[in-house]
Amino acid sequence: MAQRRIKLVIHYDGTAYHGWQAQPDVDTVQHQLQVAVGKLCEQDNVRLVGSSRTDTGVHALGQVAHLDIDTPVPTCNFVRSLNRYLPDDIVVVSAEDVDESFDAISSTQSKIYRYTVYTAKLRSVRDIRYCWHRPAELDIDAMQIAAAKLLGTHDFKSFASAADQRESSVRTILKCDVIDEMPWIHFDVQADGFLYNMVRNIVGTLVDIGRGRWNADYMDQILAAKDRTAAGKIAPAKGLTLVEIFY
Amino acid sequence: MAQRRIKLVIHYDGTAYHGWQAQPDVDTVQHQLQVAVGKLCEQDNVRLVGSSRTDTGVHALGQVAHLDIDTPVPTCNFVRSLNRYLPDDIVVVSAEDVDESFDAISSTQSKIYRYTVYTAKLRSVRDIRYCWHRPAELDIDAMQIAAAKLLGTHDFKSFASAADQRESSVRTILKCDVIDEMPWIHFDVQADGFLYNMVRNIVGTLVDIGRGRWNADYMDQILAAKDRTAAGKIAPAKGLTLVEIFY
Repeated sequence: MAQRRIKLVIHYDGTAYHGWQAQPDVDTVQHQLQVAVGKLCEQDNVRLVGSSRTDTGVHALGQVAHLDIDTPVPTCNFVRSLNRYLPDDIVVVSAEDVDESFDAISSTQSKIYRYTVYTAKLRSVRDIRYCWHRPAELDIDAMQIAAAKLLGTHDFKSFASAADQRESSVRTILKCDVIDEMPWIHFDVQADGFLYNMVRNIVGTLVDIGRGRWNADYMDQILAAKDRTAAGKIAPAKGLTLVEIFY
Repeated sequence: MAQRRIKLVIHYDGTAYHGWQAQPDVDTVQHQLQVAVGKLCEQDNVRLVGSSRTDTGVHALGQVAHLDIDTPVPTCNFVRSLNRYLPDDIVVVSAEDVDESFDAISSTQSKIYRYTVYTAKLRSVRDIRYCWHRPAELDIDAMQIAAAKLLGTHDFKSFASAADQRESSVRTILKCDVIDEMPWIHFDVQADGFLYNMVRNIVGTLVDIGRGRWNADYMDQILAAKDRTAAGKIAPAKGLTLVEIFY
């Protein structure tokens, strides 16, 4: 037998995990998946490459990972078998053989994240894990105007927590929609890549504009500042979900 | 000041609690609420009377409780203030002064519970806490025919876990709907009262009928048997939500 490359699509509720990335002494989604593949294929040191290093508390309904493995277990058995070994809050929804040229990280064309804000006065006990409860009247029009200013290719340094000085902070935002489903507001952001905490920093800033701290045009100044302190406060992790990765 | 009676309507996600009822050494919803009222009114030994003693893992979007208290805190402040003292998975949605003749338990006319089954092949990570994942094709028509046989006044002993021999197990079911929202199936049951585990035992039995273990007419025999072992297995707690109590 020879080694083959398998692509997995994974959903998870990130509440219980210290994010995607395997780290010593804490439970992570990558760790749980590596353990499950290891049990299925009876191998140690299985290593997955995940497309997005989602943070603690961030969810996914479309994370993608690849792994290289030499095993007699057919790929068509992976979904059913891995889900038996995984905790309930992680599920593998597809597994397929891919060419060696496929790489979960570098083959990525773009990704979509959805951030959800819940604006009703009282919190919703059924959704506390999946939204930011922000009981306020938010100006949807102003947020939509400001969001549209982010479309296209810009230096998004003002929205990057802990920017790496050696790397470019220029990215291209393909979509930045503010969707009114009162009392819910969804922010759908699609880009060719994301800086650290970029979506949560964008949402925190748009919410500041929505509640009238700044007007929509101020977004131009924030972008031009290329300074994290020019933008709004970061929105909490639990409202964020990685929705889809395009290859 | 004099003692007054306050009626509370409460929502909760029951996942983290050992049910409603206060008990030594475990965390319960009643306990959390009593502590919150105690802090707000600066009183010890606050005691709530809850309408339904929901079990471990069962949820509520309409639990009702009353309490008697002598406090200068106006009732109109209760909702906002209690929610500050409560954990995120419990929320008080209304508080109103009621006449002493109101009793959360004995004034109850009827209650509605909803039980949700998720029938897709793969579990839904976002809803694992609120449904029974039962990946199977279920015959909706057969379940609806069987459910209709439960309407009206019957001895429901076959659906009571740990029946109390001294008490009557006769109840009146006002509604027993099987709602097809594939891949979700909801079971809405309204009755003037419920025996211990009655909804979960009914749903377990209907699912057995839905998957063809028995035909719909067998429900008549189960009812007539007045024997718990005649009915199907109990459905898991997490799929159950107390939806509304009518007074």
